[in-house]
Amino acid sequence: MLTVALPKGGLLKYGIHLLNNLGLDFSAFLDAGNRQLQIIDGSGTAKGLLVRAQDVPVYVEYGQAQLGIVGFDVLREKNPQVAHLVDLGFGYCRMSLAVRQSSSYQSPLDLPAHGRVASKYVNSAYEYFQHINLPVEIVPLYGSVELGPITGMSEAIVDLVSTGKTLKENGLVEIATLYESTAYLIAHPLSYRLNEDNLSNLIDKIRKYTEG
Amino acid sequence: MLTVALPKGGLLKYGIHLLNNLGLDFSAFLDAGNRQLQIIDGSGTAKGLLVRAQDVPVYVEYGQAQLGIVGFDVLREKNPQVAHLVDLGFGYCRMSLAVRQSSSYQSPLDLPAHGRVASKYVNSAYEYFQHINLPVEIVPLYGSVELGPITGMSEAIVDLVSTGKTLKENGLVEIATLYESTAYLIAHPLSYRLNEDNLSNLIDKIRKYTEG
Repeated sequence: MLTVALPKGGLLKYGIHLLNNLGLDFSAFLDAGNRQLQIIDGSGTAKGLLVRAQDVPVYVEYGQAQLGIVGFDVLREKNPQVAHLVDLGFGYCRMSLAVRQSSSYQSPLDLPAHGRVASKYVNSAYEYFQHINLPVEIVPLYGSVELGPITGMSEAIVDLVSTGKTLKENGLVEIATLYESTAYLIAHPLSYRLNEDNLSNLIDKIRKYTEG
Repeated sequence: MLTVALPKGGLLKYGIHLLNNLGLDFSAFLDAGNRQLQIIDGSGTAKGLLVRAQDVPVYVEYGQAQLGIVGFDVLREKNPQVAHLVDLGFGYCRMSLAVRQSSSYQSPLDLPAHGRVASKYVNSAYEYFQHINLPVEIVPLYGSVELGPITGMSEAIVDLVSTGKTLKENGLVEIATLYESTAYLIAHPLSYRLNEDNLSNLIDKIRKYTEG
């Protein structure tokens, strides 16, 4: 059966809305109090898997899901072996470098060499500073990255920003954008090539719906 | 000022209760609707930092907090450069290997060589299978690890178990315990040696309280 991995969090409702418009109903995932992690669509033709955003490419890479919906930020950070099929356009955000508003840093190269940058996106941060040729120490955090500069542990942070509200509330300001991100449709490469479960039919519909 | 990093999640209320009994009040962190990540104790002598459990050792390692409270599972998985001072006794859980109840695996060595094991604790899982000399592929997940065996992506999982309710609900059963875990008091090694902010006074009190 065709299986689609869907990400918990902000992208979920858009992903479900998209699939609903194409005849696949996984809206039960949106019910408050839902505890199911797998749902078979009413038509009995497809299964939805509800997983953490970072786990979507894992399920697709291992072929447990032929398709997945996930933010480009996750693909860029983890570089999983999956096919990137369609930019779905929703879920816009950007990977930003931010510093304290009260600091003197106005551009990335103002940061001191061997300074510290806190981030949940250590690969993205590392690549960026390699690219601008500024040696920094990346401090890996799991949450509340904005505490890094506030406590003085780091000079800057690299984090995903959508509205910028969290940065503002914490007295931080963006000084560079590493890249922009939207949701992508991804596929298991072999399933895609072999057109398992007539995958290409759904993919074409998603492409037309997104571009139309 | 003496700073203590406290973990969000299940250990928080026990950690705050412990410090409260020794005269440091960070109970505002427990208020529903609290959004503060830093609180100064009423006596003005200590600061509490509220961070993700996995970030507690990071703040302590970098010296932004002289002390921290965190589960042994995090210390064992990440092996941060911090001093382990006191086993606080609360927050008991165990790192377990679990399989589907319906499977034929009754002990770890029943698992097929080159099978897959899903886990959020990839280092713990890797070390364990090295130790029993069984080559397996570790599938790194961020959440809902129990989906691994249910979807057929993995033969087994390595995960933290406290009551066992989640395993049971998902038709999984434990076949080995990798290690047991409780909360630990940790310290920044240099701050500890130099007795910064008269750290040893608080540590002694915690030790007495815990052992008494």
